[in-house]
Amino acid sequence: MAGSVFGTIFRITTWGESHGKAVGVTVDGCPAGIPLDEGQVQAYLDRRKPGQSRFATARREGDQVELLSGVFEGKTTGTPIAMMVRNTDPRSRDYELIRDVYRPGHGDYGFDAKYGFRDYRGGGRASARETVGRVAAGAVACRFLAQYGVEIRAYTKSIGDVEIDPGRFDLACRDQNPLCMPDPVAAAKAAEYLNRLIKEQDSAGGVVECIIDGVPAGLGEPVFDKLDACLAKAVMSIGAVKGFEVGDGFAAARSRGSENNDGFYTGSDGVVRKKTNHSGGILGGISDGGAIVFRAAFKPTPSIARLQQTVNRAGENVDIAIKGRHDPVVVPRAVVVVEAMAALTVADLLLAHRCARAAER
Amino acid sequence: MAGSVFGTIFRITTWGESHGKAVGVTVDGCPAGIPLDEGQVQAYLDRRKPGQSRFATARREGDQVELLSGVFEGKTTGTPIAMMVRNTDPRSRDYELIRDVYRPGHGDYGFDAKYGFRDYRGGGRASARETVGRVAAGAVACRFLAQYGVEIRAYTKSIGDVEIDPGRFDLACRDQNPLCMPDPVAAAKAAEYLNRLIKEQDSAGGVVECIIDGVPAGLGEPVFDKLDACLAKAVMSIGAVKGFEVGDGFAAARSRGSENNDGFYTGSDGVVRKKTNHSGGILGGISDGGAIVFRAAFKPTPSIARLQQTVNRAGENVDIAIKGRHDPVVVPRAVVVVEAMAALTVADLLLAHRCARAAER
Amino acid sequence: MAGSVFGTIFRITTWGESHGKAVGVTVDGCPAGIPLDEGQVQAYLDRRKPGQSRFATARREGDQVELLSGVFEGKTTGTPIAMMVRNTDPRSRDYELIRDVYRPGHGDYGFDAKYGFRDYRGGGRASARETVGRVAAGAVACRFLAQYGVEIRAYTKSIGDVEIDPGRFDLACRDQNPLCMPDPVAAAKAAEYLNRLIKEQDSAGGVVECIIDGVPAGLGEPVFDKLDACLAKAVMSIGAVKGFEVGDGFAAARSRGSENNDGFYTGSDGVVRKKTNHSGGILGGISDGGAIVFRAAFKPTPSIARLQQTVNRAGENVDIAIKGRHDPVVVPRAVVVVEAMAALTVADLLLAHRCARAAER
Amino acid sequence: MAGSVFGTIFRITTWGESHGKAVGVTVDGCPAGIPLDEGQVQAYLDRRKPGQSRFATARREGDQVELLSGVFEGKTTGTPIAMMVRNTDPRSRDYELIRDVYRPGHGDYGFDAKYGFRDYRGGGRASARETVGRVAAGAVACRFLAQYGVEIRAYTKSIGDVEIDPGRFDLACRDQNPLCMPDPVAAAKAAEYLNRLIKEQDSAGGVVECIIDGVPAGLGEPVFDKLDACLAKAVMSIGAVKGFEVGDGFAAARSRGSENNDGFYTGSDGVVRKKTNHSGGILGGISDGGAIVFRAAFKPTPSIARLQQTVNRAGENVDIAIKGRHDPVVVPRAVVVVEAMAALTVADLLLAHRCARAAER
Repeated sequence: MAGSVFGTIFRITTWGESHGKAVGVTVDGCPAGIPLDEGQVQAYLDRRKPGQSRFATARREGDQVELLSGVFEGKTTGTPIAMMVRNTDPRSRDYELIRDVYRPGHGDYGFDAKYGFRDYRGGGRASARETVGRVAAGAVACRFLAQYGVEIRAYTKSIGDVEIDPGRFDLACRDQNPLCMPDPVAAAKAAEYLNRLIKEQDSAGGVVECIIDGVPAGLGEPVFDKLDACLAKAVMSIGAVKGFEVGDGFAAARSRGSENNDGFYTGSDGVVRKKTNHSGGILGGISDGGAIVFRAAFKPTPSIARLQQTVNRAGENVDIAIKGRHDPVVVPRAVVVVEAMAALTVADLLLAHRCARAAER
Repeated sequence: MAGSVFGTIFRITTWGESHGKAVGVTVDGCPAGIPLDEGQVQAYLDRRKPGQSRFATARREGDQVELLSGVFEGKTTGTPIAMMVRNTDPRSRDYELIRDVYRPGHGDYGFDAKYGFRDYRGGGRASARETVGRVAAGAVACRFLAQYGVEIRAYTKSIGDVEIDPGRFDLACRDQNPLCMPDPVAAAKAAEYLNRLIKEQDSAGGVVECIIDGVPAGLGEPVFDKLDACLAKAVMSIGAVKGFEVGDGFAAARSRGSENNDGFYTGSDGVVRKKTNHSGGILGGISDGGAIVFRAAFKPTPSIARLQQTVNRAGENVDIAIKGRHDPVVVPRAVVVVEAMAALTVADLLLAHRCARAAER
Repeated sequence: MAGSVFGTIFRITTWGESHGKAVGVTVDGCPAGIPLDEGQVQAYLDRRKPGQSRFATARREGDQVELLSGVFEGKTTGTPIAMMVRNTDPRSRDYELIRDVYRPGHGDYGFDAKYGFRDYRGGGRASARETVGRVAAGAVACRFLAQYGVEIRAYTKSIGDVEIDPGRFDLACRDQNPLCMPDPVAAAKAAEYLNRLIKEQDSAGGVVECIIDGVPAGLGEPVFDKLDACLAKAVMSIGAVKGFEVGDGFAAARSRGSENNDGFYTGSDGVVRKKTNHSGGILGGISDGGAIVFRAAFKPTPSIARLQQTVNRAGENVDIAIKGRHDPVVVPRAVVVVEAMAALTVADLLLAHRCARAAER
Repeated sequence: MAGSVFGTIFRITTWGESHGKAVGVTVDGCPAGIPLDEGQVQAYLDRRKPGQSRFATARREGDQVELLSGVFEGKTTGTPIAMMVRNTDPRSRDYELIRDVYRPGHGDYGFDAKYGFRDYRGGGRASARETVGRVAAGAVACRFLAQYGVEIRAYTKSIGDVEIDPGRFDLACRDQNPLCMPDPVAAAKAAEYLNRLIKEQDSAGGVVECIIDGVPAGLGEPVFDKLDACLAKAVMSIGAVKGFEVGDGFAAARSRGSENNDGFYTGSDGVVRKKTNHSGGILGGISDGGAIVFRAAFKPTPSIARLQQTVNRAGENVDIAIKGRHDPVVVPRAVVVVEAMAALTVADLLLAHRCARAAER
């Protein structure tokens, strides 16, 4: 229950602090026989690696993953897959300042209230560095999902008020700009906005959108383990996420039944499809055969260089200006984390789905 | 994993179909020594009972709960609490029509894809009637939370485009209108809107907001079982919910760090507080001592009398007009369900929290 | 964690006290499409029903099960199966005596230490009546296992020092004597022994043996969820069980590797088998294709009419003679409970096994 | 569900193969504030280290543990504790022989049936080397239990037919002989017996007994998560264990109620105690305040140099003589593993117990 375990059948445990010796993950429940090597995991980790643009923390981490168990002759064996990344560039002295001060917008105060103390160096377990384990495990889940033809792609939908234009949407160009925006015009505008914020010692939030293709109808468990409920938990567990919606989401609340319902039809090829996808591919908590579409709202990076008022451990009112090396916006580096959490969720429910019928499937 | 179990320590299993013999719930893990009687559970169930206004289904269910175990001499004993409500007014013949037809906006198609067939009578397990068990269990959780001074109150924030006016917000008047809106002017406007929709054989969605007072700082587990992640799953598991946000939610994505951060301060009474509550009472997944505030977006009722196009089990394109007895909007009756899910989540995390430190607390 | 939930995928929650309104169980995770009716569950419950011989409690319970959900048109639907049995013959006044006295050999003292008080009537939740829910759920599990050709049969192996003679072993005669012994000569001797004990206001223990046929090689999960480890927990969770062994069990500790190893061979039919079955069908925690054989040791019924010394809630030394209606030996009625727990364990691991390989199976 | 996770609140995941890069464990749910350092964990690992006597495998492993996370300034932080031991002396070429042959008494056949193939080098995940993770995690659990005054001590009770004499029982001398027997005379006899078996290319089994002092009354959850049921699963999950019993165990099945019941009494110091401890400290699945006593039966090491008949992957009948470096008896090195599993079980139930009452405890 202590919170670092995710999933029921495809189940992972992440571990490690920002400025400890290493961060890592153990995957238990990955089926046997899936082709897997270190390079495939590394490719995912490289997408979240810091130090790659001026919009991301200047911390330099090689983030070389070591695959320690669970793979034999190039295939998963069904036993736990342990993976680890050593921390190489912690500058803990930067954090002496915040040892006794509660940063606004951070979990410092809650952690101390919970445990009585905390590993404050670099945010400890609450650091974004914790997502290394998620991404490594997500890479494994993606390899499993690939066998089913399931493909997961996330991207930056907006930063601040700058949103991608559906008319210019081009997923191919997502990886051509450091903001992960699949619209070059919006990406340029967002970069401009971020440059201004950096100058003003401020930060931005944004929205990540994720599309999952290839999920067959029938996935998700009724009642509490609905596909969208599980995705919501997975995505809301990423630091800085404050909102989650599937399909039309909050807009559906202002819609009418006659507009929001997606009509089914059978095409000339005999396949059942939906005319629209207001549902985001999920009805009654179960996949309906359409593409799964969801969005996550990220708040602005709470660490800003600007002076802020807060309190310290002694309860005294103090001022704080957070120097360190911080991303002015977390959204671009979070894109692959969103993909990882979606992959872990779908992998777990795909396995659960194998148990739905008396006759094995 | 089959989805009808919720919670880890305070753990419930709901059961029952809309037109089966009964619906119910078993609560395992409720601590011993909590005063509890049938009347207290009944009071919660009465709030979701159908047939109470023209905006809710005309189905008439007494919804009398029977408390079957786990209480002795007026107190919980620490052993499972089983509760059951008999179904008394099912009109299954109304549903013969949909036996072979997939209703747009409903889970019918996914259920058949998953299990090969389904109990179609009244939506079976996918019916809103399934929430009887949630509400009964939630009533027990509320009794437990009351011992900690935790209080949970939800209400209708908006129906369609009609939103309550913060200036007129008055929780006391929530129960004085059938729409559960704590603003009499908005309630009147929303009623007008619904009357129009009924005439047009259409339906509306809306937003429920929930405030949880009295949660001490420190609740929630880091990483995957964050307080907001757990609330998100709990609330998104309610049928028809398409979005969830905490604090400023999606608006935070357009904000700046300097605006979104809540500064801490120590008041003249020596208590640490926050100047604002953009976080909605949760930072880093852990309660920060502020009121917890979240919202859930409900889509419009999918069952509408208007003619719709869809397919049947044979894959043929057919038209459907859903008569039956359906709520033109589910939001008002869902308010108590949102409270129940929030209570179950907080109760579970309160118990988990007892295990955070070496020295017992 | 509160202890009334068993299983991970095929998961049950039992509830109810000996002298409460009812006892029951909810099964979540039973696959869809399994033929099931009330009569099939009733047949299992009839095997543990009290009042059927002079060696069992004289309490008279019809033990009529009511199947409340999860079955539609004669088949399981994949949603929770709730079952309930009303208590009809509680004589709670018999138990006023033990309200404040801790019976030797019973859990009274521990329950009070845990919860601060207890439902003392008839032993409350610690009563053997709690097994009604296990047996009902086990009946469902057996229906599922029947689809795989798995068959589970338990019987009384010994009562006190009276053990069945392998040379006279005849499973057909198990149900022809009230002691469930598949050896008529041993059954007669054991009956004689019990008659003597009744006269002496004393009680006996015994051993139940269980054979599971038809389990394919490969079942069970490595490391912690080994097939034998899961069976051990399942069986040790039955009240009064003090020991568990699989295959040669404790005798294996005195054996040599050259004697204890079962050699594999391929018969003329091309099928791999073992020459012997010292392993009891399980190697390394995984089924090896042989029949699964295990034994459970039951202690003597602790409730005896003879005078015993103990303490009361006030900590005073007192004497107690337990009148009530008690079985002089619990073993015969426990036989079907052992079968039920074995069935629940194997069903759960069969479903887990569906997730072992990348290619679905 | 894949089997390498143990515990519900104090929850561990072990990983690693005998001849992979490393073996390790992640502990999630250990409370914050417990003093812990690498040396304390190393002390436990040193007790199971191979190569320390002629009765243990000659494989030489330094087994130096690396503590990777979850500890800050000498105390646990409440976040996951990851620990790893590198494999340094694998001789995988020894195992080419068994790549395609199913060793009698081993899990090879079941693993292949389950996963389609296996990491055969050194037994892969089924190797006794897997227990490194258990012991490291158990060391952490013992540190937690020490705060409650709970102490766990196991020892070799018998090897083959050689059993310790209660009259000579002296726990202090357990660590003075390589067989972990707390009776020097029995230890000498057992050594003689093992020398003979080594000459005869054979192996022995034995019994480990474990005593847990300091457990207060009230621990364990009623029904399925009984203290003895949880211990049974924990201990039966250790490779080679074929039987488990608590208190009088199988002997209780031959006893009478009047003999087996332990009378409670209040001593002149006002403390409630039991006159005898036939129950082994557990009644109704809940600790009764007495010392907890249980035993585990280990089968003889299946790897013997003597020629045995078996089959290969192709299903052909073949002979096998297992050379490698194998323990003639696993019992002495398993003693600390039994302690570890007991500690993990009690730690988990101690935390669960914190949730038993409405008023926090």
